Amino acid sequence: MSGYEIKPIGTVESPLTDPAAAPKQGDEGAPDCWMVLEPDVVEALDGIREGDDVLVLTWFDRASRDVLRVHPRGDESRKPEGVFNTRSPHRPNPIGLHRVEIAAIEGNRVLVRNLEALDGTPIVDVKPVLSADVDER
Amino acid sequence: MSGYEIKPIGTVESPLTDPAAAPKQGDEGAPDCWMVLEPDVVEALDGIREGDDVLVLTWFDRASRDVLRVHPRGDESRKPEGVFNTRSPHRPNPIGLHRVEIAAIEGNRVLVRNLEALDGTPIVDVKPVLSADVDER
Repeated sequence: MSGYEIKPIGTVESPLTDPAAAPKQGDEGAPDCWMVLEPDVVEALDGIREGDDVLVLTWFDRASRDVLRVHPRGDESRKPEGVFNTRSPHRPNPIGLHRVEIAAIEGNRVLVRNLEALDGTPIVDVKPVLSADVDER
Repeated sequence: MSGYEIKPIGTVESPLTDPAAAPKQGDEGAPDCWMVLEPDVVEALDGIREGDDVLVLTWFDRASRDVLRVHPRGDESRKPEGVFNTRSPHRPNPIGLHRVEIAAIEGNRVLVRNLEALDGTPIVDVKPVLSADVDER
């Protein structure tokens, strides 16, 4: 099947630079960091306010795309699982999904809480959180 | 900024073929449909069971990528908003995010409930639902 081009809309500016030190999920101690958006997409933020929770999609550009099974959370004592049943960055399309809180919006720079992504990670999309995502069925 | 290649891991098989008739979100009456995965990624499903809720990421291959504002839910009486504050398929990287329930797994064919995506839509990732996504903070 043919592929598509995914184009970064911005980049993460974060104090996290060491993959080994990064928390496994955003609620486990990720620092505040900046999303630096391309100036030509800033208009697409219209309506998003400080205090909102949003979903940020990133591209784990340092991940391995040919990994299909991993030890959950990198714990080798646990049985390997299919990557589609984990949030491992290593997966055929290394898209990261992060629920973050918008702390400030300053032009094309957006300060967010709880984004666990390495410095320089490309950002590919931002979406509102919907009740359909969060309702327990 | 340079782009990356996103490679479909499968395709949606759905009775929905008309974009105008598609429900706006999966909980508004989407039919059951099949995810037909590429045989070489089936291993990555390991650990996912019937009855699980998962997040499916699709690529809206029929969307416009140069749209930055839309009328929410296509309602022209509503003020246009930035696409990052909507779930419009029209956005710089037309990635769809769908919370679905796994109804059956038959080899590389996975039956899901509540996936609102047109027949033939490429699938790019599958992820577990995490409490960090769903907890209200």
